[in-house]
Amino acid sequence: MAPTSHFYTNNGAPQNGAVVPAGAGNVPPQHSCLLDPNEFRQQGHQVIDFIADYYARMDDYPVHPSVNPGFLRHQLPANAPSRPESDAFGTALRDVRDLILPGMTHWQSARHFAHFPASSSTVGALGEALTAGINVVPFTWAASPAATELEMVVVDWLGKALHLPESLMFCGGGGGTLLGTTCEAILCAIVAARDRKLADIGSGRIGDLVVYCSDQTHFAFRKAAHIAGIHRDNCREIATYRDDMFALSPTELQAAMQADVDAGLVPLFLCATVGTTQTTAVDPIRELCAVAATHGVWVHVDAAYAGSALVCPEFRHLIDGAEAVDSFSMNAHKWLLANNDCCVLWVKKPSLLIAALGTEQEYILKDAAAEGHDVVDYKDWSVTLTRRFRALKLWLVLRCYGVEGLRDHIRGHVDMAVSFEEMVKADPRFEVMATRQFALVCFRLRAPEELGGPKAANDLNRRLLEEVNATGSGPYMSSANVGGIYMLRCAIGSTLTEEQHVRAAWKVVQDRAASLLRKMESINAVA
Amino acid sequence: MAPTSHFYTNNGAPQNGAVVPAGAGNVPPQHSCLLDPNEFRQQGHQVIDFIADYYARMDDYPVHPSVNPGFLRHQLPANAPSRPESDAFGTALRDVRDLILPGMTHWQSARHFAHFPASSSTVGALGEALTAGINVVPFTWAASPAATELEMVVVDWLGKALHLPESLMFCGGGGGTLLGTTCEAILCAIVAARDRKLADIGSGRIGDLVVYCSDQTHFAFRKAAHIAGIHRDNCREIATYRDDMFALSPTELQAAMQADVDAGLVPLFLCATVGTTQTTAVDPIRELCAVAATHGVWVHVDAAYAGSALVCPEFRHLIDGAEAVDSFSMNAHKWLLANNDCCVLWVKKPSLLIAALGTEQEYILKDAAAEGHDVVDYKDWSVTLTRRFRALKLWLVLRCYGVEGLRDHIRGHVDMAVSFEEMVKADPRFEVMATRQFALVCFRLRAPEELGGPKAANDLNRRLLEEVNATGSGPYMSSANVGGIYMLRCAIGSTLTEEQHVRAAWKVVQDRAASLLRKMESINAVA
Repeated sequence: MAPTSHFYTNNGAPQNGAVVPAGAGNVPPQHSCLLDPNEFRQQGHQVIDFIADYYARMDDYPVHPSVNPGFLRHQLPANAPSRPESDAFGTALRDVRDLILPGMTHWQSARHFAHFPASSSTVGALGEALTAGINVVPFTWAASPAATELEMVVVDWLGKALHLPESLMFCGGGGGTLLGTTCEAILCAIVAARDRKLADIGSGRIGDLVVYCSDQTHFAFRKAAHIAGIHRDNCREIATYRDDMFALSPTELQAAMQADVDAGLVPLFLCATVGTTQTTAVDPIRELCAVAATHGVWVHVDAAYAGSALVCPEFRHLIDGAEAVDSFSMNAHKWLLANNDCCVLWVKKPSLLIAALGTEQEYILKDAAAEGHDVVDYKDWSVTLTRRFRALKLWLVLRCYGVEGLRDHIRGHVDMAVSFEEMVKADPRFEVMATRQFALVCFRLRAPEELGGPKAANDLNRRLLEEVNATGSGPYMSSANVGGIYMLRCAIGSTLTEEQHVRAAWKVVQDRAASLLRKMESINAVA
Repeated sequence: MAPTSHFYTNNGAPQNGAVVPAGAGNVPPQHSCLLDPNEFRQQGHQVIDFIADYYARMDDYPVHPSVNPGFLRHQLPANAPSRPESDAFGTALRDVRDLILPGMTHWQSARHFAHFPASSSTVGALGEALTAGINVVPFTWAASPAATELEMVVVDWLGKALHLPESLMFCGGGGGTLLGTTCEAILCAIVAARDRKLADIGSGRIGDLVVYCSDQTHFAFRKAAHIAGIHRDNCREIATYRDDMFALSPTELQAAMQADVDAGLVPLFLCATVGTTQTTAVDPIRELCAVAATHGVWVHVDAAYAGSALVCPEFRHLIDGAEAVDSFSMNAHKWLLANNDCCVLWVKKPSLLIAALGTEQEYILKDAAAEGHDVVDYKDWSVTLTRRFRALKLWLVLRCYGVEGLRDHIRGHVDMAVSFEEMVKADPRFEVMATRQFALVCFRLRAPEELGGPKAANDLNRRLLEEVNATGSGPYMSSANVGGIYMLRCAIGSTLTEEQHVRAAWKVVQDRAASLLRKMESINAVA
């Protein structure tokens, strides 16, 4: 593909050296033209049509581009333009279409089955557009009262819709906030837990604190713990097993904690997962909380992906016992139509978050109205002080699709995953590698006996994935490696995905597998 | 104001208890309708017109609403709707207009002079809309190659436009990334510095690490250091003085570091500021770096606000000596038209960031194309793994306004601030409290002699600010408290602000001051 470049060329001599002091008689700039309602309207309609056209022709793109590192960098000038070319906005949009989009991985494609979904919706995307247009910074209540209040409302709405315990919501004495990502959410929880524990045992003992997870827990947890100053050697990744569906064992957790206590260390924090990244394993919340309680350990539940599924009552049992957890997070941008980014963190005791992360400075305006009231200043609930008005988007999604609409959405994907799983099971050349719980199917091609050991089987499946992903017009999947076993992951969750896409994806996998096996047979025949 | 509520009412019995297992014969949901191009087009045009109308009537709103805590929460239902009402999107937009906007602080108002600007532009806002529509997650190069490459290009474009040393850019062996906020940026830098230092002195000595700033440094720094496990007692806030224009003194820094070394502690990190939050003070970079170097201390420059001004060569001298800094951050969402959020972090040695924050997991797809190449995976450069495609917005801003256009934009605001400062100086009742460097003017009403001491003067100015902000149709300003002196801050930087708004704002300040002084005279006369 060799698109026509509309990139400007930098004509004339560089003007960087020209010193024009402020107020030296230069033509007054017309600030208002940078946010002129009419220009915004005209260019805004262009952008909306551009995005709608992109959705309409999404299927024309390979999900993943065939490009090499540097492909775009080397096409762009080394400097920003000094002055814009004429119709700069229209020209730039054409470059987005002709140069940038062909180099993207199209997460919204109906054939995107890799990683986890980044589910987009009309309302989610337009909620973001609205937030960007209004562009406020609700770091305190006073800095935009309606933004803070809508956030408080919407985290309770979502918590109830997901069947979380009331103790995590404002209506039950807890509370929630909207952040960017899970790593931020866990980091906030760890710092709150750390400060509480160090207040008890003395701040000099930070090196003795130990955190716990399973070998399936997302790296975000280890990253957050490391950032918070927990020693890398003090992160216990407890082994999981296929027989336990890769769930964290309370017995092994108890043994690990006791060993640390015996060694003079201090158990601090447990990150349990509902829906692990590799195979969507679910850790047993109630039993893990019971173990954690005996050691005064903070329990966080990371439900980044599967939290969205909790909107369906049939999944509620997966978080039985969650009344005992200290904090809980999920990504509404993953599978709940809320567009990137929208991580929701709920905590049982907001005062612990505020003690760890809060501030008070004179330059922050306290409203007369806010004084003496129990006002939430969200800057004290997270890493960041500046923040976006994410609540508007999430409120629009809940309002315009409704809880039942979100259930339909989740169940539709789960149904498709059931179909895919059944197709895998019906083909004796393949095997399902982890019990399907939500809308992810982990599977692999059985290696022919003559092929030899586990490494050869892994190589075979690695090659299968490469060939599947190389088809261009076919699906795009990713892989997992659990206990040394390499497997393919088919994560169904793109908003545009329909049953037909899942069936077509399976057909491609079968075809590529047949071709691979044929090649190997002929190699063996020659040998 | 008593707007008509269009909020839905929750009719019928709650349906939360109804268990409908997946695949149990319910009507298949139509996923595609959640991202239907035609519906997106129709509702998208509605949103664009909504935002354009908001800009057009921005001046009708008081900048800051007169509302009490709970005003919005108490109007909203306790639960999300089960099913959406008819025309849910249109109804929700009306609620945004009638209920939410009247409860917002309008940061885009031409009369918003509080805090620092959150500068919006047509291109910045539409860049966000475009990013939300495309909705990719470029956590690795492979996860969206064009997104990563555009980010690499645009941080170099901006670094050059701001006259940063090449050593902080990809073209000079360093590199940059786009984050949400300054606190994240500083946190990443501290963790990288911490890990490097602990590798030298032993990980058990985290409690001995000391960080340095001035008493004018933004709280974000202390927050970041605390999150990273630096002991709260080990944050040295060095006093600044009005005679030094509130800049951090290299001599005092050296004394503080030496005292810590003598006490067996380990100097780790210095946060210097170009444009402090309260008065836009500028710390002397070159001299501070020289002191830091003698102790092996990492130097970060926080130019959150004033970094934008560096696009003008006449401000370049403020970062003389920046070749020696280890990292540098600024917020393009503050004063460079890039809409919230867009914090740019540059580092001299990306390998130190990656060593502190990086990971490698099998489930992350490595492209054949990427293997063996020097590919940037931005997930290893920051706290978050999930990230937004912020580069698109920043690229559009640079492309469509050009470096000279951004200079005009900055100089226009600086000129207005010069005007405001001159008006303050021309009125003997007032005094300018800190040397104006950019587009912030700090001033206060001189207290009449009979009023008494400094506390009374502070009270007078606090009351003046309250009265100014209470006018509704007038300006909205904030305050600073430096060295026990309370002052008003007039931060000029809203995209829509023109000279006329600045003059009108000053008129309101004068009128309110005159009224206050008259009231006090009559009270004194009675006494």
